[in-house]
Amino acid sequence: MRTRQALIRAASEEFDLYGYDGTSLARISSAAGMSIGAVTFHFPTKVHLADTVQEEGLSVTLAALERLSAEMMTPLRMVIDLTLELTRLMEQEPSVRAAIRLGRERPGTEAWSDAWLPTVRGLLDRAYESGQLRTDALPADVTTLVEHLTSGAEAYLRRRMGSDPAFESAVAQLKRVWHLALVGVSAEGPAVPRQTGSSESPAQTG
Amino acid sequence: MRTRQALIRAASEEFDLYGYDGTSLARISSAAGMSIGAVTFHFPTKVHLADTVQEEGLSVTLAALERLSAEMMTPLRMVIDLTLELTRLMEQEPSVRAAIRLGRERPGTEAWSDAWLPTVRGLLDRAYESGQLRTDALPADVTTLVEHLTSGAEAYLRRRMGSDPAFESAVAQLKRVWHLALVGVSAEGPAVPRQTGSSESPAQTG
Repeated sequence: MRTRQALIRAASEEFDLYGYDGTSLARISSAAGMSIGAVTFHFPTKVHLADTVQEEGLSVTLAALERLSAEMMTPLRMVIDLTLELTRLMEQEPSVRAAIRLGRERPGTEAWSDAWLPTVRGLLDRAYESGQLRTDALPADVTTLVEHLTSGAEAYLRRRMGSDPAFESAVAQLKRVWHLALVGVSAEGPAVPRQTGSSESPAQTG
Repeated sequence: MRTRQALIRAASEEFDLYGYDGTSLARISSAAGMSIGAVTFHFPTKVHLADTVQEEGLSVTLAALERLSAEMMTPLRMVIDLTLELTRLMEQEPSVRAAIRLGRERPGTEAWSDAWLPTVRGLLDRAYESGQLRTDALPADVTTLVEHLTSGAEAYLRRRMGSDPAFESAVAQLKRVWHLALVGVSAEGPAVPRQTGSSESPAQTG
């Protein structure tokens, strides 16, 4: 089992950095310091390894979701903490980064966000019903905002990785951004966004 | 020149979809319906083509920036319109999408956001000074928010591309998200974010 775990770890790092097409069993065996034979004993093909890495990344993600949902807090607070925890996982878990990338690059496999976005939507519905959200901050729109922020955290992380390690962590950065998203950036209040909204999004003016 | 333009267009589409490593001159020549000889006459190597595609994507981006800066509007309004215009370019211009992707995948070449993020920061400084931003919405933080939203728009676009064309446009989606970012999602006002902020970001409480 140790060999298998070491292989999954090495494969996660390779898939994360080079993507599905850029990764080969030869490359993984060399990164893990094993023979090709040892690799194919556990994982006959790259498809098997990629599937396993995606499952690993998703199960790490779902475990974090479960840990959080056991805590006592308001739904909006939980959404915020969930995105911060997801960002921490992105930062620290190669299998999570690999699962995100592989989910994008392998059509037909599960997108990473499918594992947690329905939970976020459910929490935001509850936050709305309990009056935690502004009446014009509809749960569907706030879910879209959460998707944008999480994608933004990943993009920042990928830009930063490999460069200066003294850069601000993606988690700290997301906290700053959440602060703004909660209270808004505009000094003028609700009057400004009406100009921003367009006929394409009538829900905003409701 | 027509051949050259057709080649840049075909190369943009290939680099956008398959990245730098996944693209070959053979693939581009076949996509453009030209012989390899015709391709190498204009662009001796893949490096030349990638450089040209990145330049093209950046110059399209800078032209949009110039068009916008000629208009009369407040700095905050201009930041919003700029991100919407950048998202429209991402949606419609293969050279822009390719420049974004190549800037990420080719270390040492210009990152796409370097072309416009300093302009955004300058506009936000002006927006802050003129009282358009909340006093605790510091220009550096709002710039980070803008980066996250733009990355989010790109990620959405890439997930959506190739799937159902009836999906909401990334521009319409970003408009909904900006509405929330301007006024905030929380019904409770400025009290909530204090919980969100941490010792890592003391600037928020200022």
